[in-house]
Amino acid sequence: MNFASDNWAGAAPAVMSALTRHNSGFAPAYGTDPLTDRISEKFNEIFEREVAVFFVATGSAANSLALAAYARPGGVIFCHSDAHIRVDECNCPEFMTGGSKLAGVPGPQGKVTPQGLREAMAAHPDGVVHHGQVAAVSISQATECGTIYTLDEIAAVKEAARSRAVPLHMDGARFANALVTLGCTPADMTWKAGVDVLSFGATKNGCWCAEAVVFFDAEAARGFEYLRKRGGHLFSKSRFVAAQLDGYFEDGTWLAAAGHANEMAARLAQGIRDQGGRTAWAVDANEVFPILKRSQFEALEAAGARLYEWPAKDLSSNIAPAEDEVCLRMVTSFATTDEDVKTFLKVL
Amino acid sequence: MNFASDNWAGAAPAVMSALTRHNSGFAPAYGTDPLTDRISEKFNEIFEREVAVFFVATGSAANSLALAAYARPGGVIFCHSDAHIRVDECNCPEFMTGGSKLAGVPGPQGKVTPQGLREAMAAHPDGVVHHGQVAAVSISQATECGTIYTLDEIAAVKEAARSRAVPLHMDGARFANALVTLGCTPADMTWKAGVDVLSFGATKNGCWCAEAVVFFDAEAARGFEYLRKRGGHLFSKSRFVAAQLDGYFEDGTWLAAAGHANEMAARLAQGIRDQGGRTAWAVDANEVFPILKRSQFEALEAAGARLYEWPAKDLSSNIAPAEDEVCLRMVTSFATTDEDVKTFLKVL
Amino acid sequence: MNFASDNWAGAAPAVMSALTRHNSGFAPAYGTDPLTDRISEKFNEIFEREVAVFFVATGSAANSLALAAYARPGGVIFCHSDAHIRVDECNCPEFMTGGSKLAGVPGPQGKVTPQGLREAMAAHPDGVVHHGQVAAVSISQATECGTIYTLDEIAAVKEAARSRAVPLHMDGARFANALVTLGCTPADMTWKAGVDVLSFGATKNGCWCAEAVVFFDAEAARGFEYLRKRGGHLFSKSRFVAAQLDGYFEDGTWLAAAGHANEMAARLAQGIRDQGGRTAWAVDANEVFPILKRSQFEALEAAGARLYEWPAKDLSSNIAPAEDEVCLRMVTSFATTDEDVKTFLKVL
Amino acid sequence: MNFASDNWAGAAPAVMSALTRHNSGFAPAYGTDPLTDRISEKFNEIFEREVAVFFVATGSAANSLALAAYARPGGVIFCHSDAHIRVDECNCPEFMTGGSKLAGVPGPQGKVTPQGLREAMAAHPDGVVHHGQVAAVSISQATECGTIYTLDEIAAVKEAARSRAVPLHMDGARFANALVTLGCTPADMTWKAGVDVLSFGATKNGCWCAEAVVFFDAEAARGFEYLRKRGGHLFSKSRFVAAQLDGYFEDGTWLAAAGHANEMAARLAQGIRDQGGRTAWAVDANEVFPILKRSQFEALEAAGARLYEWPAKDLSSNIAPAEDEVCLRMVTSFATTDEDVKTFLKVL
Repeated sequence: MNFASDNWAGAAPAVMSALTRHNSGFAPAYGTDPLTDRISEKFNEIFEREVAVFFVATGSAANSLALAAYARPGGVIFCHSDAHIRVDECNCPEFMTGGSKLAGVPGPQGKVTPQGLREAMAAHPDGVVHHGQVAAVSISQATECGTIYTLDEIAAVKEAARSRAVPLHMDGARFANALVTLGCTPADMTWKAGVDVLSFGATKNGCWCAEAVVFFDAEAARGFEYLRKRGGHLFSKSRFVAAQLDGYFEDGTWLAAAGHANEMAARLAQGIRDQGGRTAWAVDANEVFPILKRSQFEALEAAGARLYEWPAKDLSSNIAPAEDEVCLRMVTSFATTDEDVKTFLKVL
Repeated sequence: MNFASDNWAGAAPAVMSALTRHNSGFAPAYGTDPLTDRISEKFNEIFEREVAVFFVATGSAANSLALAAYARPGGVIFCHSDAHIRVDECNCPEFMTGGSKLAGVPGPQGKVTPQGLREAMAAHPDGVVHHGQVAAVSISQATECGTIYTLDEIAAVKEAARSRAVPLHMDGARFANALVTLGCTPADMTWKAGVDVLSFGATKNGCWCAEAVVFFDAEAARGFEYLRKRGGHLFSKSRFVAAQLDGYFEDGTWLAAAGHANEMAARLAQGIRDQGGRTAWAVDANEVFPILKRSQFEALEAAGARLYEWPAKDLSSNIAPAEDEVCLRMVTSFATTDEDVKTFLKVL
Repeated sequence: MNFASDNWAGAAPAVMSALTRHNSGFAPAYGTDPLTDRISEKFNEIFEREVAVFFVATGSAANSLALAAYARPGGVIFCHSDAHIRVDECNCPEFMTGGSKLAGVPGPQGKVTPQGLREAMAAHPDGVVHHGQVAAVSISQATECGTIYTLDEIAAVKEAARSRAVPLHMDGARFANALVTLGCTPADMTWKAGVDVLSFGATKNGCWCAEAVVFFDAEAARGFEYLRKRGGHLFSKSRFVAAQLDGYFEDGTWLAAAGHANEMAARLAQGIRDQGGRTAWAVDANEVFPILKRSQFEALEAAGARLYEWPAKDLSSNIAPAEDEVCLRMVTSFATTDEDVKTFLKVL
Repeated sequence: MNFASDNWAGAAPAVMSALTRHNSGFAPAYGTDPLTDRISEKFNEIFEREVAVFFVATGSAANSLALAAYARPGGVIFCHSDAHIRVDECNCPEFMTGGSKLAGVPGPQGKVTPQGLREAMAAHPDGVVHHGQVAAVSISQATECGTIYTLDEIAAVKEAARSRAVPLHMDGARFANALVTLGCTPADMTWKAGVDVLSFGATKNGCWCAEAVVFFDAEAARGFEYLRKRGGHLFSKSRFVAAQLDGYFEDGTWLAAAGHANEMAARLAQGIRDQGGRTAWAVDANEVFPILKRSQFEALEAAGARLYEWPAKDLSSNIAPAEDEVCLRMVTSFATTDEDVKTFLKVL
């Protein structure tokens, strides 16, 4: 019963097998190999247009370098107050962008609201040098709360970003999970809704270490290869990142993995609710934040379940944990079994 | 006949098999898994003392972060004029260290000489703020010329570094190759000779992407985990870096791989000399820099050999290429076959 | 009736005259002149102990470089949410510190509370690499609200900082104003209360451009001269910064100037209250934040008064501006005349 | 007999008097005052076109920020091996540009040669990510050797820069001295010859601390105000920088000061030659590098002369100092008197 995080899983079988398959023989180094080329073109196909794609191996690198491509001196990047890039990257975005600020925009369900964003940006009027300059807006799909922006919500955030002429970045650490939930195309969820640059995450969904920075804005991509190398993020044996993605994409592995993870989360949520429980936020993807009695939590842990306590922030009073309750985080993945879910619900 | 570079090879069988072996099940993320712990302890054993070891996945990251641990404002890092960190990292060391200079120290056979180092450092006297401050010395083992520092040579460079109270870094991108040649212990070649921090390279010698920063100086290692994370170089599924090293170390894979690569290089060099040819520099490890007739080079390429032209710098006049000659670089690895060597020599 | 800001004034007569006096003849450049030495020693006298003092010319430089001396990778610096260093420096502190975060601690009257500080720091537990590391605490004396920390309040903030083993920085942009109000010694208000490093501001109080970074912690001062030069903040004709301070200190100019400014502010506040008005925050130094009818504001502007609208944040409901009211900021200086104050109150 | 450096002088009388004159009254802060506007427009007049001008107070800031405006990740800036920005700024340019390299181009008389520049840039071919990317070319006018680029020489360097599509920066720390020697207009010596951005130095020639970054390329100037502020180089009482320049420009003070300094240098050089001496490099501006007997140097010092020993690099054998000789640097300024020159030559 491991619900600690989707990055506690290994690599999905198709990914591991592609790694093995592409291991033999020699291949040009530093991203100039044919496999890297082929997978890069695969991104054009997936996104139904020409994109500029750069492979990296950590989400921190993908997010920070993507934002660095839009860095401005004194730049302020707007994201949700609880966004991973703001809270969990040990200042990697700040460092890579030459000292930008990551301004937190509060909002319910872990989402930036257009209104909140406009207000936050208004504190940095154009031309007032003291407060720095608005540089970018970043949203996470799925969010840190396990929720998902609808296409309309993305478009509304973009509208606010456009009002200040700054790009929209999407941290797609759980991109596939969101895609499956929305049932739309990758194009719909990104450039058609106004996303300028995407951190395409594959690690949490079954790769070992494969992420991609995808620019829908060719101009901004110029010079990115230097940003990546300057950050130490260009791999010599780079075919192995591409190899993971080859396995990831083949036969719809990625969508199947995300679909399974989402399904497991949905069952957990339903089971919890069936027993009169509740979750802190909507369960849109592969994360469940149940609010349980502390005694239940202890029983689950005793039964071997791995899950984390979570700060229950910004919850309305009818949802927030009572004194004897605790908010938890559970994450499912391709590796979560139906049996684990059943056991969990039984112990509960 | 692929002699393009050791990073054109895939992963050695033992490494690939360890990756597969450690793939199953869940493991704590971000370097807190038991395998990472176990391999970290393996480094204590290998170096015959307590070390502080941090895994990363690129040599650029290992070198740049190791140097960043010793960064000073206005810092000047001294290395050979042709050192990889100075010439081939797209300013990653400069960026990670907050704008340090990498001052080139010329020297024959790709090696920093103590005298050259002292003179270069003398241009930056203590307390003269304009010229910045001496911050570190870095040597490459093996060097960019495929040569190897003897233990006495390392100790002599250390002595010069000590005279200015700065640490000695070793870029060990080809650490194992050097070790095999010298026939000494890892301890001998590092801390016993005065090395304070080592970039332990395993990628070129049979891993896919496994490097380690090894501190023999516990004080300098404090805070390093933040440097690594700030650079985006902490992997979530970090067990996979450790897994590669597990395969790398088991049954002496690493030394066998390096020994094989060195042997292949030695045969190439011998074969070239047997035919009246010469090499630009001593063939101490797994790199050969033959000076051939351009017609020979063309014939080799026509026969399918992959090898690179190389700038023939700082060569005495009796060695430097004549007008119709060209200096080449050939790199061998665990994947180089005896047959490739024979074919090469035959075509030659 | 200019109450726009204390940095709209010129240089005080004693300062200007010292500049003229020290202009003649030659003096060694880059801070090695006898006058710089003499004024540096003056700081030992003023602070009743050996200090390490470095002159710069802008408050941005003083604050950012002081904090850079304590920078850590992934560092988080805690200050009031409205602190100048967080809001008004265009990311200069972030840039100079290699991408630190400036975490805002809310608190009434513009002051960091020990409790608020402890809670904010608790979100960054030691050893949790994702959230970065606690690096420093910074308070402003006087604050952005024109209030002043008592010695006990400083000591209490220090106590919280000490609990996480990080230094306490004081942004003393209005140091003299605070000193006069508290009626204590510079030593009392700084190192005796636990301040480790001070940005000693003199510009706003009658210099043209003279600030000093004062370390009470000799160890942290090591290397600072390189930080200053690397930032481009070492002046070639540096005697002129020292010259300003010579005039500033002579015959108690600095305390007299601050005393006058404070007195003018007190009269403004008293006059406003006498007419039934109120101020948003306590008037402890040379800033007054009156809450006036918008019609009054317009009348004042029509009469030639220069003063700014100010965001009225975090005010209790009985103080916050009503719909037809506006919160303003008025700043007095050595150049504010009694007549200006009287005129203002008359127009009001 | 002070020939130590032009930055050992104070401020010229006209500059000091302008400082005093503009001291009274209030002025908007942070560069928004009318005087700053007026002097900014003066630059349009001086350069016979619209320019974007930004005032700073140190040459380090001017150079480093000007280059930062053109920074690229992995950027390489080419300048003479002995250029001030490369040797004497404690890595300020490297820091401000996010870790650029300053590649030294050797060349006689302290000048970058087009051929040397092309060769140096050729080591960084477009698209080879490892070696970084060519980002800018910088020349110093006058050079560190006291020589001056002719207009044709500037144009030829520009031609080489243009071949790689990078801008040409001029470090004009001694701009006026060069201008007077060439007898051309500021426009001729800058944008008409291909300069894209200029560090306009006034400090060494009679200001206390007044420098300007002048962009002839409006696009590159966008965002520069944020670069300046992020570096801590925006002055609150900024009118005082403008005030210095007001005095500097009035009645041709600047050209007269430079003319006087150049004349003093010429007389020194002539006197030295008249006595059979020689100089290391051509005396084009206000610096003289005589090669004297060590005994002469000692006699001069005994007589109270201030001058520095200087590394005599890259000199042909008929000029380089003999064993009993020493190369010295002497710098003249507006403050150098005819009497000092005479005394010097007499002692000699």
